[in-house]
Amino acid sequence: MIKRIGPSRLSPTRGRSVIYQGVVTTVATSDTKEPSLYAQACGALAAIDRNLIEAGTDKSRILTAVVYITDMQRKPEINRAWDEWVDRANLPMRACLGVDLEGDDLVEVVVTAAV
Amino acid sequence: MIKRIGPSRLSPTRGRSVIYQGVVTTVATSDTKEPSLYAQACGALAAIDRNLIEAGTDKSRILTAVVYITDMQRKPEINRAWDEWVDRANLPMRACLGVDLEGDDLVEVVVTAAV
Amino acid sequence: MIKRIGPSRLSPTRGRSVIYQGVVTTVATSDTKEPSLYAQACGALAAIDRNLIEAGTDKSRILTAVVYITDMQRKPEINRAWDEWVDRANLPMRACLGVDLEGDDLVEVVVTAAV
Repeated sequence: MIKRIGPSRLSPTRGRSVIYQGVVTTVATSDTKEPSLYAQACGALAAIDRNLIEAGTDKSRILTAVVYITDMQRKPEINRAWDEWVDRANLPMRACLGVDLEGDDLVEVVVTAAV
Repeated sequence: MIKRIGPSRLSPTRGRSVIYQGVVTTVATSDTKEPSLYAQACGALAAIDRNLIEAGTDKSRILTAVVYITDMQRKPEINRAWDEWVDRANLPMRACLGVDLEGDDLVEVVVTAAV
Repeated sequence: MIKRIGPSRLSPTRGRSVIYQGVVTTVATSDTKEPSLYAQACGALAAIDRNLIEAGTDKSRILTAVVYITDMQRKPEINRAWDEWVDRANLPMRACLGVDLEGDDLVEVVVTAAV
């Protein structure tokens, strides 16, 4: 059985999370679009937390995180938000990539977690 | 057992799809390389449809989609193609990212689906 | 049970690999940061080999590879390294995307493999 959670807050044609075979995949940006990449990183990670709880899990069970940011020069800001947020007893694999995002988004995060 | 489908139409050293534990992961670009991002998005999604059928599934069972486009200013074009294509009763999680692609490619899509 | 391997050589707050339900996901860049994308591609793929062995598997069981490079004009260099490295009897699905990476990194690779 596939369990779908959504649609996303952004669009009626995309899901927020999908659960299959005990793994959830979820995506988030920051609810608020501050010019601070650090602030948006905190916002996106908080949204991930909410999505994980909604899916019946939490950050201690994250498997992988792919973090997309729009300005690699500001990677220290996402690292700071990450370090404050991550469960150090349960480190996810993480990749961080510089890409273009839509509008005022500076950070987007895709996470897989065991449910 | 790992089931591999391919090689891809582009290269003898890459697969088109791989199935493991009931999940297929597949990748596609458009067969035709029109300058219209909308047209290439339709082409890439049609290729995803073919790959899913080849793997024994279809778009109603997609779990996640990561859509890569070369020009975030033209995201409305991929959104239009997506909205016409997606199974609204079975919304995948989707992320859309602006990256560089090879040659005349404007869109590349990576999908996971339950088989 | 989630099996975590790490932390990564780069940071105490990220894992190198995570294994769950018989699948490992791992990430690598090149240990050395030569200006040659080909050399860094070889380095990143060698690091992937080491990570896979550490996880109890090897490249014959890779499912998917997402290759991130900083200069799509130099994609032939990653293709050459890939072609020399890949197990042609067991082709992974591969996507190759142009993104920004940190510092002198020219290549980053994320792989999933059956364990």
